[in-house]
Amino acid sequence: MRIITISREFGSGGRELGKRIAESLGIPCYDQQIIDMVAEKSNLDKDYVASRSESDIKAFYSSTIAHSFTMPNYALMQSVNILSEEHNIIRKLADNGDCVIIGRAADILLENENPFRIFVCADEKSKLARCRSRAENGENLTDKEILRKCKEIDKKRSSYRKMYADKKWNDASAYDLCINTSGKDIKALVPAVTAYINEWFSK
Amino acid sequence: MRIITISREFGSGGRELGKRIAESLGIPCYDQQIIDMVAEKSNLDKDYVASRSESDIKAFYSSTIAHSFTMPNYALMQSVNILSEEHNIIRKLADNGDCVIIGRAADILLENENPFRIFVCADEKSKLARCRSRAENGENLTDKEILRKCKEIDKKRSSYRKMYADKKWNDASAYDLCINTSGKDIKALVPAVTAYINEWFSK
Repeated sequence: MRIITISREFGSGGRELGKRIAESLGIPCYDQQIIDMVAEKSNLDKDYVASRSESDIKAFYSSTIAHSFTMPNYALMQSVNILSEEHNIIRKLADNGDCVIIGRAADILLENENPFRIFVCADEKSKLARCRSRAENGENLTDKEILRKCKEIDKKRSSYRKMYADKKWNDASAYDLCINTSGKDIKALVPAVTAYINEWFSK
Repeated sequence: MRIITISREFGSGGRELGKRIAESLGIPCYDQQIIDMVAEKSNLDKDYVASRSESDIKAFYSSTIAHSFTMPNYALMQSVNILSEEHNIIRKLADNGDCVIIGRAADILLENENPFRIFVCADEKSKLARCRSRAENGENLTDKEILRKCKEIDKKRSSYRKMYADKKWNDASAYDLCINTSGKDIKALVPAVTAYINEWFSK
């Protein structure tokens, strides 16, 4: 079975790369749908699920425990439930067959399936360009504000991953292939990456 | 111009990968020759040059400074000269045209030439297998001893790199492509890696 996981810095084009790889291999790509499925299953708001599922339980625990000496900590329990539901769904998606999964530390959750683990990064100049090109109308952040946002999101992702992993988020040895997209057209990189993946799974 | 640099963990097959990429692209690969050229140019023994050129000047400085309060520190001066000669030679090799350069932080020394920077790593099991397969007759190290040797050499390489770089040796974002060779046949990976390099240099 071919499971391909994408971990990525915000603004690196990792999501686009994952989608294009999936397209090129003719297999599904799961990203936002995972949140949607968790929200539906747990009868919760999508945005709430997204925010909770991106948080590090430990950090959340420390920030809430102070306010709940005797009462059960429902918010924490809900976070744990959301994560647990997320794991179930990721495992089910993988059971369904070949796929690309974006984010959510799927490479670690699915390590027994021997996924092909990709990490995607880029330099600040490329991240700025990518964020500007996909900014919504009316959004008018300075370079400094965009880069701060990138760093904040990456910090969350790194912290989320830390719950499961012993290696650092950007440690090359935690992945099978790390791709730096700086100044590159993602689309143009896909054929060679797909060839590499095919070779990797051929034995 | 196509300059490809290889940084690699000991036992990861990075040298083999570099040589095969060079072969596949029809360009020279520089590795041990750099030491030979430095030794010849400075009229020093090859082994001495290799050992000095792998050392972190700062570490060497602290260990020798205690013994030389008043005398000029010739050993340290020689280390600096060796490194300086090494830089000159790496720059000259790059000036000569397309090439692959293994190790010696060439990616940082040549950053103005926009090299394609590869990092190669592998898990312990694969490193053990590779070290065993290339061990000389009569060499009979235990797994633990081999892994200790791998770690010692990697520590030296990491420390050598630290003289020039602000990013960690294994930080994925310091490279253009990081390749994990665990359990893989290096030769089989070469066509896809070469395709990736050709695409990278095409614009």
